[in-house]
Amino acid sequence: MLGLAWRKCLGTPDRGITTGKENLLQLVEVIRESRPRLILCPYWEDRHPDHVHACRLVQEAWFDAGLTRIGCPLPPFRAGQIWYYFLARAAEPTFIVDVSACYHTKRSAIMAHETQFGKSLNSTETFLNAGPGSLLSIIESRDRYFGSLAGCMYGEGFTTGSPLAIHNPLALLGVKD
Amino acid sequence: MLGLAWRKCLGTPDRGITTGKENLLQLVEVIRESRPRLILCPYWEDRHPDHVHACRLVQEAWFDAGLTRIGCPLPPFRAGQIWYYFLARAAEPTFIVDVSACYHTKRSAIMAHETQFGKSLNSTETFLNAGPGSLLSIIESRDRYFGSLAGCMYGEGFTTGSPLAIHNPLALLGVKD
Amino acid sequence: MLGLAWRKCLGTPDRGITTGKENLLQLVEVIRESRPRLILCPYWEDRHPDHVHACRLVQEAWFDAGLTRIGCPLPPFRAGQIWYYFLARAAEPTFIVDVSACYHTKRSAIMAHETQFGKSLNSTETFLNAGPGSLLSIIESRDRYFGSLAGCMYGEGFTTGSPLAIHNPLALLGVKD
Amino acid sequence: MLGLAWRKCLGTPDRGITTGKENLLQLVEVIRESRPRLILCPYWEDRHPDHVHACRLVQEAWFDAGLTRIGCPLPPFRAGQIWYYFLARAAEPTFIVDVSACYHTKRSAIMAHETQFGKSLNSTETFLNAGPGSLLSIIESRDRYFGSLAGCMYGEGFTTGSPLAIHNPLALLGVKD
Amino acid sequence: MLGLAWRKCLGTPDRGITTGKENLLQLVEVIRESRPRLILCPYWEDRHPDHVHACRLVQEAWFDAGLTRIGCPLPPFRAGQIWYYFLARAAEPTFIVDVSACYHTKRSAIMAHETQFGKSLNSTETFLNAGPGSLLSIIESRDRYFGSLAGCMYGEGFTTGSPLAIHNPLALLGVKD
Amino acid sequence: MLGLAWRKCLGTPDRGITTGKENLLQLVEVIRESRPRLILCPYWEDRHPDHVHACRLVQEAWFDAGLTRIGCPLPPFRAGQIWYYFLARAAEPTFIVDVSACYHTKRSAIMAHETQFGKSLNSTETFLNAGPGSLLSIIESRDRYFGSLAGCMYGEGFTTGSPLAIHNPLALLGVKD
Repeated sequence: MLGLAWRKCLGTPDRGITTGKENLLQLVEVIRESRPRLILCPYWEDRHPDHVHACRLVQEAWFDAGLTRIGCPLPPFRAGQIWYYFLARAAEPTFIVDVSACYHTKRSAIMAHETQFGKSLNSTETFLNAGPGSLLSIIESRDRYFGSLAGCMYGEGFTTGSPLAIHNPLALLGVKD
Repeated sequence: MLGLAWRKCLGTPDRGITTGKENLLQLVEVIRESRPRLILCPYWEDRHPDHVHACRLVQEAWFDAGLTRIGCPLPPFRAGQIWYYFLARAAEPTFIVDVSACYHTKRSAIMAHETQFGKSLNSTETFLNAGPGSLLSIIESRDRYFGSLAGCMYGEGFTTGSPLAIHNPLALLGVKD
Repeated sequence: MLGLAWRKCLGTPDRGITTGKENLLQLVEVIRESRPRLILCPYWEDRHPDHVHACRLVQEAWFDAGLTRIGCPLPPFRAGQIWYYFLARAAEPTFIVDVSACYHTKRSAIMAHETQFGKSLNSTETFLNAGPGSLLSIIESRDRYFGSLAGCMYGEGFTTGSPLAIHNPLALLGVKD
Repeated sequence: MLGLAWRKCLGTPDRGITTGKENLLQLVEVIRESRPRLILCPYWEDRHPDHVHACRLVQEAWFDAGLTRIGCPLPPFRAGQIWYYFLARAAEPTFIVDVSACYHTKRSAIMAHETQFGKSLNSTETFLNAGPGSLLSIIESRDRYFGSLAGCMYGEGFTTGSPLAIHNPLALLGVKD
Repeated sequence: MLGLAWRKCLGTPDRGITTGKENLLQLVEVIRESRPRLILCPYWEDRHPDHVHACRLVQEAWFDAGLTRIGCPLPPFRAGQIWYYFLARAAEPTFIVDVSACYHTKRSAIMAHETQFGKSLNSTETFLNAGPGSLLSIIESRDRYFGSLAGCMYGEGFTTGSPLAIHNPLALLGVKD
Repeated sequence: MLGLAWRKCLGTPDRGITTGKENLLQLVEVIRESRPRLILCPYWEDRHPDHVHACRLVQEAWFDAGLTRIGCPLPPFRAGQIWYYFLARAAEPTFIVDVSACYHTKRSAIMAHETQFGKSLNSTETFLNAGPGSLLSIIESRDRYFGSLAGCMYGEGFTTGSPLAIHNPLALLGVKD
C-alpha cells in the first residue's frame, strides 16, 4: 500500500520499548544497514508511552550508530537529519509538507493497522477509531488545519528540534535550481 | 442572528485602530457603561494589524476603566477577566469550549461580514473566503481540531495570558454544585 | 484529617519509584478499581527525583489503564483529566483554586507527615521544615502569592499540560447553570 | 527615606508616557548626565500600560544615549546593564537578591506613594492597597516567595532579558576576591 | 557590490521609522511595484529601536499590500513569505543557510556602511566596529557558530515566525527533483 | 594541565551512565566526601546520550546526598548550586563568564582527550575533531560568540535552571565589597 522498497519490523511487543542495550543495538544495526539520509520518528511528547520511548530510542541509536566501539560489526554511520512527526500531541511545526495528493493513502495506511483502528466485524469501537475526539479525528483534523496554514488541503507537520541546514534557500520558495 | 441584548460599534475605520487617547476614552466609556464580568478580544498576535492594535486597546482600556482620574464621568469599573480568541494566528489554548451546538450560528455570523467573507454577486474571491488556505478555512479547520482535542465536534479555543481564578474546581469536571 | 472516603498507599519505598512493570500494574489496578474522573499528581519537574518519577508513572499508568491487553483483569478505564500540583518547583499555573477556607487543613496534613516535616521531640531541623528557605516556606509563600494573583488569601496552583475542556464557560466566571 | 544621593522626576503625567521624541530626549539627557553603570526599570509586561511604555522608553533611551547625532549636547554614553523588576506581572527571575535587611524600607517607600497606596484620612480603599489580591499583596507575597527560593526571608527578583556578563564567577557563590 | 538588479531606499532618517500612515503607504507601494515572493527583514527583537520598528513596519505593510482599499493605485499583492534575519539579538533560527562561498561579500557590504562600521581616516572607533564585543564581532562570530551547527564555515540564520510551507521535502535534504 | 587539587574518575564505561542505584551511590559518596559549594555538569539536552544521563545522575545525586537514610555512611550534604555548561547543544545562557585569559588551557584540555579529539598519528579524523561542523568547531565558535555577547574574546555560557541567589548584587557590576 505504501509502495516501500524496504521495511523492517523489530518485533518489540506493545509497551515494551525501552532504551535498553538490546533495543539500541537492534536499531543501530538497522541504521548502519540502511544508511538513511533522513530518519522520521514520533515527536518527543505523546500520551502513548511507547511513542515517547521510541523517540528516545531513535535519538540514542542515531548517536550510537556513529560511534566506533559500540558492538556492531557494520561500519559507523551518522544519518543527516531526524524529523519528528506528531501523533496524539503536537507542537508548532517547523515546517508543513503538502500531502493532499497522497492523503487517501495515509488514511488507508492508518486504517490498515487493523488491531487499533479497524472497524471490521470483530473490532470494537475505541477512543482510537470512534467519535469526534478519537485519535483518528485528532490526526485528520490537525492535518487539515496544518494544510490551511500552508495554503493546501492536507499538511503533514514536522518539527526538527534544532535548526534545519539549508543549502539552496530558493528551494524553500519552490524555485528549482 | 447572534441574539445579543446589546451591541455597540465604535465606528473606527479599517486600519484605524490605535491606542490613542480618543479610542481609549471611547472604550473606557463602553466598559463603564456595560460593566462586564468578562471581556473577549482578539489574541495578541495576528497577521492583521488591526487585531493586534485592538487587543492592546482593550488591555489598556480595561486598566484605565478602573482608574479614578481618567476623564470619563462614569464610575470606575474593573472587569473580572479578559479571554483572548484566535483569528489567523493561534497558540496552545488555555481552555477549549465545546461550541458544536451553536457552530452553525458562528459560521453564519462570519459569512454575514459580507464585505469580507461574502460570496454574493458582487463580492470577489479573496484569500479570506476562498481556497484551502483562506482565513475561513483556517478558522473552521482549527475549530474542528480544537474540538477533537476536547472530545467534541467543534471547539473554540481561548487563552487567558495569566492564570484563571477558579472558585469551584468541580465545575471544570462538569460536576454541578 | 482529610476526610477521605478511600485511600490506598502502594508501599513503594522512598527513592524507589520507577516506571517499571510492577509499579505500573499496581497503579493501573488502582485506577481501574476507583475509576476516577480526575487524577492529581506532582508537577513533572521537581528537585525530588521521586516526584519526577511519580509523575511519569501516573502518566504511563493513566494511559495503560485504558488499554485492553495489559495484564490486569479489571475492565479498561481512561480517567478524564490529570491536574499537576507543585512541590519544590513551580511553573505559571493554568488555574488557581481558592483554598483559603481549608488552608488550615492543608497545613495540618503536611505537618502530619511526621518523618519529614514534624518538629516533635525526636525530629531534627532539616531544610524541609526549618528556615525561610525550607520546603514548607516555599509551599506556604507560593500559596499566598498564587492567592494574591487570584484575589484570595491562599491559592492552590495547578497546571494541566494540555488545554482544559470546558463545557460550561460561565462556570469559570462563577455563574451557576 | 531611600537615602538617595540624587533623584530626578521627569514630570510626565499619569498615563502620559510614550516613546515620542520629547520623552526620549529628556531621558537621554538624564542618562548622559548621570552616566549610570546600571539602569533599573519595570519588567516589559504589566497590566499598567504606563509601566509597559516606561520599559520601552528606557530601552530606546538606553540605545539613543550611545548615539552621536541624537540632538543632545552631552557626550554619548552607553549604560552597562538594564535590570527589570516586577510590578503586577512577573516571570521567572534571572536572579533574586536578598533584601530582608532593608524590606522595612521598601514597604515604607511604597506606602509613601500616598495617592496610590496611602490609607490616610482622605484616601479610599482601592484594589491597590486593600484586600488579599491588592497590588500591595501581590508584591509582598511574591517577595516572600522569591525569598524562599533564594533561602532568605525577602527576595527581589530581577530579569535581564539577555545573558549576564560575569567577570568573577566566584562572587556568585558569595566568595570574595 | 551586491549585484542587485534593483534597489530602493526610502530615505527615512535614522531613528525615524514608525508604523505611521506615510511610512506604511511608501512601503506598500514598493511591495506592489516589485511583487516579491519573499521579504527579508530584521528579527522582531533588537537593541536598535529602528530595527524593531522596521520589522513591525514590514509586517503591517505586508498585510496592507494585500488589501483592496488602502489608498495605493497599484493592484493588491500578498508576498508569499517573510524571513527574519538577526542583527544584535538572535533566537534559535528555524533554518541556517550555508553562506561560506559569499561571506567575503557580506563582510564587504557591512563595511561599506561607512558611517557606521567604516574605519577610514575620519571615522571613530565605536562599539559597532571595534573590540571583541562590537556589533561586527557579534555578527561574524554568530555566523561562524551557526555555520558550525549546519556543518559549514559560515551560516546565515533565519527565523520565520510561523511554519514554513514545503512543497518538495526532498529539497530539504539536498535532493533535486 | 588544569591545576586541580583533586580529581576523581568514577570509571563508568562509555554509554554506560544510568541513574541506577550503583551509579547514584558512587556519586553521593563523592559529593559527601568533597562537600562542594558548586557542582558543574552538562546541560540537560545534548545529542550524546551519556551527557543527558550524566546530567540526570548529577541532579538525583545532588538531592540524595542531602537525605539521611540513603545507604552512605558519610554525613548528609546539600551543595549550594548546580551550573550547567553546554556541549553539542546550547540554550540561551543565564550568564557568561569571561574565559579569554585561560582559553588556551581549555583548548589544550579538550585536545588532551586523545581518544576523542586527538589528531596524533594513530587517531582518525572524525566529526568530533575535523571540519567546520565538528564538535570542536561548535564549542570554539560558540565560546567566541558568547564572548562577543559579553564584551570579551571568549565566554563560557552557563544556565542554572532556576533563579540565581545573589547576596551582593554590586558584584554583578564588577564592583567589589
